[in-house]
Amino acid sequence: MKVFPYTNVKAEDADSGAVGVKVRWLITKEMGAPNFAMRLFEVEKGGCSPFHAHSWEHEVFILEGEGSVMSESGQKKFKQWGVVFVLPNEKHQFRNEGKGVLKFLCMVPIEKKTK
Amino acid sequence: MKVFPYTNVKAEDADSGAVGVKVRWLITKEMGAPNFAMRLFEVEKGGCSPFHAHSWEHEVFILEGEGSVMSESGQKKFKQWGVVFVLPNEKHQFRNEGKGVLKFLCMVPIEKKTK
Repeated sequence: MKVFPYTNVKAEDADSGAVGVKVRWLITKEMGAPNFAMRLFEVEKGGCSPFHAHSWEHEVFILEGEGSVMSESGQKKFKQWGVVFVLPNEKHQFRNEGKGVLKFLCMVPIEKKTK
Repeated sequence: MKVFPYTNVKAEDADSGAVGVKVRWLITKEMGAPNFAMRLFEVEKGGCSPFHAHSWEHEVFILEGEGSVMSESGQKKFKQWGVVFVLPNEKHQFRNEGKGVLKFLCMVPIEKKTK
């Protein structure tokens, strides 16, 4: 069992194509997670993730801030304690449209997106 | 893509053995999640989950409140924005030791613990 504050994990620059986005890999395959990983994203004011799609799903919970998620069928707004579920192969982009930092958890399956 | 506030999902009584615990199944197999489910637990002041073990892991993020998680090797404290990773087959119990409601996310693999 592991118990630790999220700040114990260093924030790294997110993948290329993201603007003003840092990620902390909180629970990983290397820690012994057999099925899925937990990441915490921090998006600067005005920042965004790339508008892209991939074969794995995202399960997202908004911890702080507000913004929207773009898809091919339009834009949906979210705020603190909102839930976002992105299906496999669905195009998506997270945008910080609030006044402060946007922070959210994003879980992904380990077989598809490992670290 | 689904975007909704967590309060859109009704809180249900948790499994027997839990004291003062409600659960909201935020992302489920029925919604199309292929690999893992997202649940939000609310534990009343003084409440706790059962001290038990099972074959699937827990990936937990503390949203609000404070408490501790018991294991066979002792007790570890957590507070807001803490991370708890419980390995498969590891005995565990979540306890609310704060003054208010303890709220946390708990993700589980879908093959093992479906709804």
